[in-house]
Amino acid sequence: MIKTKKRGQLYVVSGPSGCGKDTIVQELLKRKDNIWLSISCTSRLPRPKEKNGVDYFFKTVEEFEEDIKNDEFLEYAKFADNYYGTPKKSIDNHLNNGEDVILVIEIQGALKIKELLPDTLFIFILPPSMKELKRRLEGRGTETKEKIDKRFLRAYEEINEVNKYNYVVVNDEVKNAVEKVEAILLSEKCRVDRIEELDVFLQSS
Amino acid sequence: MIKTKKRGQLYVVSGPSGCGKDTIVQELLKRKDNIWLSISCTSRLPRPKEKNGVDYFFKTVEEFEEDIKNDEFLEYAKFADNYYGTPKKSIDNHLNNGEDVILVIEIQGALKIKELLPDTLFIFILPPSMKELKRRLEGRGTETKEKIDKRFLRAYEEINEVNKYNYVVVNDEVKNAVEKVEAILLSEKCRVDRIEELDVFLQSS
Repeated sequence: MIKTKKRGQLYVVSGPSGCGKDTIVQELLKRKDNIWLSISCTSRLPRPKEKNGVDYFFKTVEEFEEDIKNDEFLEYAKFADNYYGTPKKSIDNHLNNGEDVILVIEIQGALKIKELLPDTLFIFILPPSMKELKRRLEGRGTETKEKIDKRFLRAYEEINEVNKYNYVVVNDEVKNAVEKVEAILLSEKCRVDRIEELDVFLQSS
Repeated sequence: MIKTKKRGQLYVVSGPSGCGKDTIVQELLKRKDNIWLSISCTSRLPRPKEKNGVDYFFKTVEEFEEDIKNDEFLEYAKFADNYYGTPKKSIDNHLNNGEDVILVIEIQGALKIKELLPDTLFIFILPPSMKELKRRLEGRGTETKEKIDKRFLRAYEEINEVNKYNYVVVNDEVKNAVEKVEAILLSEKCRVDRIEELDVFLQSS
């Protein structure tokens, strides 16, 4: 069957720190073709083990501000004196190429994208419970109690925004959660207003 | 995790004669729990191999008309002097019990249900092409050329209604089609307005 090349679908994945969103997305990318993960830019310094172009595109403050001037970001924000931004052009290129694009960003950025690109689909990853989230944050063993408490309080605030998302996936087990995100992507391709084969079918009928 | 028992979701599956909708639904029922297939009623005589309570509930015209009087049908229609109807009470019981319910009905019935129960989700099964549909109808070898032509023309009319459905699944291979229907059911359970775990999570947070 001939396929028309439709523009890809943009997905935003968010969830509180410790919900497991990065693991889920990495597993998803292993399983699915024709999906591209957009990497954010930041002006903060790389942490040990973080790699440029993998975890973030690391930029100096000057470079970042230059990019802002040149309208390179779909959205950007400043947290704790560091810039974070979503590069625009590469996302657009991949979408135009018919690929789906996935963005893993925090909730304020997601809500900005919702205003700018209302056709985006938003997936919120929830931990199975707040108790389990606390256990996971503490289990990392890399942060002070104060930082953990701060993350935990922020998680409460973030979860209040869940109703602005389209889908919620509870990460009880990574395998189940990935299966659900995969199902979301597949079923969205079957929506009557999105299905690629339909145009071809109707033209050929 | 405690689960709130939400009302199940009603799914309607339609598609032209020969698209493979019954095979897909039977495969789906083997794979999924907590889903119930509603059997339609008819006043036509059973064909060889058809079983009462499996293919249809077979009724006399008098019994069927008595049921109409007693408001037993969600919708009913008369085709070629035979009544066909969707029994109401059993569907409602299963939905209230938290089960999803699946109805395999023709398009006119589906559109009536869309008016009555707008929360219903509608899945249209398409053959890969009209050519392949013709091949399948002819391949059955059980019908006259006239009947096949009639079914084929009706398929054209029916496919025009596809835009009134929520999802379209192309039945190129049964395995792929079942996978897509399964993905639709799973992803619908993750919709923010439907997810069962969310209420419990928010209550417990």
